Amino acid sequence: MKLNSEDLKDLALGAAFLGTGGGGDPYVGRLMAQQCLDEGLEIEVIDPSDLDDEAFVIPTAMMGAPTVLVEKIPSGEEAVNSLQVLERHLGRKAQATMPIEIGGINSTIPLVVGARLGLPIVDADGMGRAFPQLEMETFGVYGVSGSPMVVSDEDGDHALIMARDNRDMEWLSRGVAIRMGGCAYIAEYSMSGADVKRTAIPNTLTLAMRIGRTLREAKSRHLNPFEALLELLPKTLYHHGRIIFTGKIADMRRETRNGFSLGHARIDGLGRFSGTMEIEIQNENLIARVGGVVKAIVPDLICIMDSETAEPITTENLRYGQRVSVMAVAVPEIMRTPEALAVFGPSCFGLDHPFVPIETMAL
Amino acid sequence: MKLNSEDLKDLALGAAFLGTGGGGDPYVGRLMAQQCLDEGLEIEVIDPSDLDDEAFVIPTAMMGAPTVLVEKIPSGEEAVNSLQVLERHLGRKAQATMPIEIGGINSTIPLVVGARLGLPIVDADGMGRAFPQLEMETFGVYGVSGSPMVVSDEDGDHALIMARDNRDMEWLSRGVAIRMGGCAYIAEYSMSGADVKRTAIPNTLTLAMRIGRTLREAKSRHLNPFEALLELLPKTLYHHGRIIFTGKIADMRRETRNGFSLGHARIDGLGRFSGTMEIEIQNENLIARVGGVVKAIVPDLICIMDSETAEPITTENLRYGQRVSVMAVAVPEIMRTPEALAVFGPSCFGLDHPFVPIETMAL
Repeated sequence: MKLNSEDLKDLALGAAFLGTGGGGDPYVGRLMAQQCLDEGLEIEVIDPSDLDDEAFVIPTAMMGAPTVLVEKIPSGEEAVNSLQVLERHLGRKAQATMPIEIGGINSTIPLVVGARLGLPIVDADGMGRAFPQLEMETFGVYGVSGSPMVVSDEDGDHALIMARDNRDMEWLSRGVAIRMGGCAYIAEYSMSGADVKRTAIPNTLTLAMRIGRTLREAKSRHLNPFEALLELLPKTLYHHGRIIFTGKIADMRRETRNGFSLGHARIDGLGRFSGTMEIEIQNENLIARVGGVVKAIVPDLICIMDSETAEPITTENLRYGQRVSVMAVAVPEIMRTPEALAVFGPSCFGLDHPFVPIETMAL
Repeated sequence: MKLNSEDLKDLALGAAFLGTGGGGDPYVGRLMAQQCLDEGLEIEVIDPSDLDDEAFVIPTAMMGAPTVLVEKIPSGEEAVNSLQVLERHLGRKAQATMPIEIGGINSTIPLVVGARLGLPIVDADGMGRAFPQLEMETFGVYGVSGSPMVVSDEDGDHALIMARDNRDMEWLSRGVAIRMGGCAYIAEYSMSGADVKRTAIPNTLTLAMRIGRTLREAKSRHLNPFEALLELLPKTLYHHGRIIFTGKIADMRRETRNGFSLGHARIDGLGRFSGTMEIEIQNENLIARVGGVVKAIVPDLICIMDSETAEPITTENLRYGQRVSVMAVAVPEIMRTPEALAVFGPSCFGLDHPFVPIETMAL
């Protein structure tokens, strides 16, 4: 399918939702993709099942602290350069690009790369949401190496990282990205079509568009957008959603450290929700507690949304006094296996609480 | 010429002198090279004039804070790996390796690489001493690109840096080296034989051996080693040397920051030297002042030596109470051009004092 301007708006909205507070502002990414359409370029999205097993796919993305990105808007060529440097290193041309992360701006970076290079974008990704570190990929969980990886900046500097494992790749490339000014553009986890089918979370680009469209249409028809979304989710791999809290932002703390946006949000309950919800953030919303009782936990999604418009609110846009609703959503089963939880489960973020699927958690 | 054990001892001593306080402890490097001889490997040093203009040379080295190196002794394979990764990237085999830095341990790392790979080592380098940063190379001053550059650690991780200039290369690779544990092994400034002849400081490996041998022989013949050394220097490109101070270490401050060893030494005068000498250090001794008057300044050499044995003392081995003599030495003219001083002259270290050649400085 070829994307149009409305698709891009829907995608940006859905990607903000799937970003669970992080992943960078998809608005910036939407403008970059829209610029491609304005130039007459095509953005073609293909289903993973349409890939030849032997096809060669190079995913593309940005990396860095979302709070830096807002002040340093990319031209769109940076990630193209990363892909091309990796192609030259490997001596092999990519037949497609793909998101590594569907949440936030990284849902749109591969659209720009695909449009500029005339490559299709695979409708799949490796996080199924946003995560703060590059080893947190189903690609890696199921055996695809992130290396060799290219990190590029807007000045024409590149670093090619060849690490023995994906954690070392993250560690070294993060050091480079910090020295490139806090955000950089990457090509990594190059793989075959067969590996895409085996390791990627399928149809997350179209899922993001469906989420965005659902919210948009509910709004234009004066329907309750939360209800509309809770009706959509069971028809997808993200099979369960629920509102876990509604209230008013009472306190918001944030800092950028080691290239990450760390934060803590406190929400005082309103209506049927009493008490105070505390949300811990490392780029994304990781855990939500009320009175010390866990209400949702990573990798399930914890999305803070404007109570009135259902607009997802990213960490950097959370403000004292906002009225918000917090929706928790089940992630696909490929993201909940013991192997997956060993890479992006609660313990990987220093949380001393086991993963409990949202659909089995007490209301 | 093929080096033997005695050559290695002489080289280590001379390289410590040329390290002007930095460059890492050459003792560790000597042991690594001796290990090669013990295994029956050959260390063959060739004159730059013996290189074909079309020959392909890949210099090798370690990078990082010397104070870290002492605690993390390398196996010898790390820099070999860097060279081989660069060869694979460039699709071209090296015919020789070469030091980038004659001061300290980097005089010996290429010996290990050459011995293990059966490659000759070119008798030349790009610093003519030790310097704290990778752009501080006559190679770069006269137009050779440091990139593509490979940084490796002992765990098998590699980063290939492709930077638009040698300063960016230094900045990015330093970030990687810090994340690799504070020191790493590199291959960079790959170049043709013609470029070696045009941009390198010639015969610095044999110079280091001559300095070491001079000090050793003076000692065994009960001659004054300082006098012997001051007689040797005018016969080399390092054409002028003088003792600028003798005294007792009264104070020594040191810290490791951003991957560099920063320090400040204070020496109270003895004998014919009155007052106090202050020496500022950034890995190497940069500037020596007495009562605010500059007595020697980078890039000329400032070598702190044991007053009795004439043993050069590296920054990390300076101790309160040591009796020391400070020798300043002129560097070759290729290192004193305006282009060279723009890259490693006083202002490059934040020093607000022009370069004054030691031979023209008031006694």
